[in-house]
Amino acid sequence: MYSLSVRDHFMIAHSFQGDAFGPAQNLHGATYVVDATFRRSELDTDGLVVDIGRASEQLRAVLADLNYRNLDEEPAFAGKNTTTEVLAREIFDRLVRAVHAGKLGDAGRSVASLCVTLRESHVAWGSYEGQV
Amino acid sequence: MYSLSVRDHFMIAHSFQGDAFGPAQNLHGATYVVDATFRRSELDTDGLVVDIGRASEQLRAVLADLNYRNLDEEPAFAGKNTTTEVLAREIFDRLVRAVHAGKLGDAGRSVASLCVTLRESHVAWGSYEGQV
Amino acid sequence: MYSLSVRDHFMIAHSFQGDAFGPAQNLHGATYVVDATFRRSELDTDGLVVDIGRASEQLRAVLADLNYRNLDEEPAFAGKNTTTEVLAREIFDRLVRAVHAGKLGDAGRSVASLCVTLRESHVAWGSYEGQV
Amino acid sequence: MYSLSVRDHFMIAHSFQGDAFGPAQNLHGATYVVDATFRRSELDTDGLVVDIGRASEQLRAVLADLNYRNLDEEPAFAGKNTTTEVLAREIFDRLVRAVHAGKLGDAGRSVASLCVTLRESHVAWGSYEGQV
Amino acid sequence: MYSLSVRDHFMIAHSFQGDAFGPAQNLHGATYVVDATFRRSELDTDGLVVDIGRASEQLRAVLADLNYRNLDEEPAFAGKNTTTEVLAREIFDRLVRAVHAGKLGDAGRSVASLCVTLRESHVAWGSYEGQV
Amino acid sequence: MYSLSVRDHFMIAHSFQGDAFGPAQNLHGATYVVDATFRRSELDTDGLVVDIGRASEQLRAVLADLNYRNLDEEPAFAGKNTTTEVLAREIFDRLVRAVHAGKLGDAGRSVASLCVTLRESHVAWGSYEGQV
Repeated sequence: MYSLSVRDHFMIAHSFQGDAFGPAQNLHGATYVVDATFRRSELDTDGLVVDIGRASEQLRAVLADLNYRNLDEEPAFAGKNTTTEVLAREIFDRLVRAVHAGKLGDAGRSVASLCVTLRESHVAWGSYEGQV
Repeated sequence: MYSLSVRDHFMIAHSFQGDAFGPAQNLHGATYVVDATFRRSELDTDGLVVDIGRASEQLRAVLADLNYRNLDEEPAFAGKNTTTEVLAREIFDRLVRAVHAGKLGDAGRSVASLCVTLRESHVAWGSYEGQV
Repeated sequence: MYSLSVRDHFMIAHSFQGDAFGPAQNLHGATYVVDATFRRSELDTDGLVVDIGRASEQLRAVLADLNYRNLDEEPAFAGKNTTTEVLAREIFDRLVRAVHAGKLGDAGRSVASLCVTLRESHVAWGSYEGQV
Repeated sequence: MYSLSVRDHFMIAHSFQGDAFGPAQNLHGATYVVDATFRRSELDTDGLVVDIGRASEQLRAVLADLNYRNLDEEPAFAGKNTTTEVLAREIFDRLVRAVHAGKLGDAGRSVASLCVTLRESHVAWGSYEGQV
Repeated sequence: MYSLSVRDHFMIAHSFQGDAFGPAQNLHGATYVVDATFRRSELDTDGLVVDIGRASEQLRAVLADLNYRNLDEEPAFAGKNTTTEVLAREIFDRLVRAVHAGKLGDAGRSVASLCVTLRESHVAWGSYEGQV
Repeated sequence: MYSLSVRDHFMIAHSFQGDAFGPAQNLHGATYVVDATFRRSELDTDGLVVDIGRASEQLRAVLADLNYRNLDEEPAFAGKNTTTEVLAREIFDRLVRAVHAGKLGDAGRSVASLCVTLRESHVAWGSYEGQV
């Protein structure tokens, strides 16, 4: 299995609902450094999993829709805790839609699976991985 | 599949038995930077794999029982080489017991698998991954 | 010159005032990974710049007063942009007060200078360094 | 499943054929920081996946045959784009041959799978993983 | 003293002249991950060393003129070895010119010094630091 | 001012004397990832601070005399706590002797200063910097 990964980041405010979150129930924020890993079993004729330029652009485009926001006010997350895991899934879903829409090129449609990892600090990170 | 990872470290002395180890047969030591990755297929009602606070506490508690020790004198490792791989397995086993004992909360019992990685330097690391 | 550094982090929400900030004028947030570097020309009788345990505790204590907050509502920052640079200076000032109050031990009073670095992402960081 | 990873690097010149590569069609170059991860389900009698010294030596030997080269002139890559993914596969193949030739020791023959990751910058990397 | 740092990268081919370089006399290449650190003693009225957006843009612009090139054919480096140190100095000089040309804004003209660091692998890096 | 840095590591056992060290009074150990930064104001005729190959070799040679040892039994450290700071100074002194002995080449004798940093974990490091 081949993979190709690109990294970018976004910065948001949010708060959590539920006693389990303790002081994180306050409005606070985070920088998420995001790794998107695209996987497929064979390379395209150029020798690529996906075009790295396109992969970077699509990740940047997806994160631009979240960057510099207060997620407590974003309709996409109404009634949800925007935990690292939930955000990893949301970014996964948006990147999968970009793949299906052909935004990573025709070759990109051959991507078999995708893993999105969000690093919230030097000591904690979360991810979601699934079929494309 | 979702995952949540936390990082901590411990510092020990030990020596290895066997010609394969060369100068590492001498009493020496290591800092191990430890990543514990918890995985499950669905999130709990809070949007979590496990509570990150509890995960950090349990990893810290497991490492506290190893930290600042000479592993050559620890009964748990009698007759065993405490290689990076062996230590990864031991920490895995102890974290699995913590999960089963409910120390990561009721939701923690839904963790499907765990991967423990020990980084012994900037150029070498080992891990053990298994079902919980 | 000797130095000793410890690392920790905090997570906050804030917004910036001024056209220069573009979309960062929105309420958003950040994780800051903080490095505090203590410097002095001679070691104490234990062979230390400062006790690493005390240094970690004091850094943690200073960051605990900022962690999980909306800095727009903190009186300490009223009328100020809480840029990475401004926060580095504020944490510097609070750590210097801890040094002067003896919270890093008698030996800690011999610290000559301190540098506080805040990493806001994998591609940007800021710092403040000065005499203690 | 256990794993053991070692890291090294190599530095090469190359160019790419195909409009998809844009300015990377020019002769340019890269540093690749290479991680080789060996996996097996049980440890050997020394408590090892593979001898870390031998693993490091074999990785170094494989990379020495690529280091300080212009890959456009290497017969091994004639007619191929030496993308990160293609190079990961080539290094994988060469390490598998080393395993089969006994260069990682008798125990090394029990390695079940191998993953080779090439980091080309702080924001992009690729890998190939397969059975040994 | 305050500082603000931004990171980017570029990928080039080159060769070195001189017996001291051994196999690096061959045409090969490198990825350089570049950190530019701007320093000044007081912040501007926005609380900034320099606008981080402008700093990132200027670093990107300077690196774009080097990226995807064979430096052996660049007039700017004729008769020079393009070592990590020499490249650090060249990027320093180009960023200083950008500062003086006002490309980092009026506030940017108050930058007192600049350090440019090029990381060529996980085990080697070089830098140049000087007055602006 | 130019600088050139190289990285390597060593692994030792030791214990500390003094109540300040708490549980670190037990025999334990550490991996130290070591960065040696050589500085000078002008480059040599090859465009170098020091030959990176020689710098790496000398750092490796100095660390080889410490690696896989129990520092409590090393005459060089009798009656001393082998703290991170003390070890940084010892490695500094040994590298300075190598410079003076011409082991970094004639050009190496022009090195003005040296900084040695020992990273003992992902959250703590120490250094010593001085004239050569």
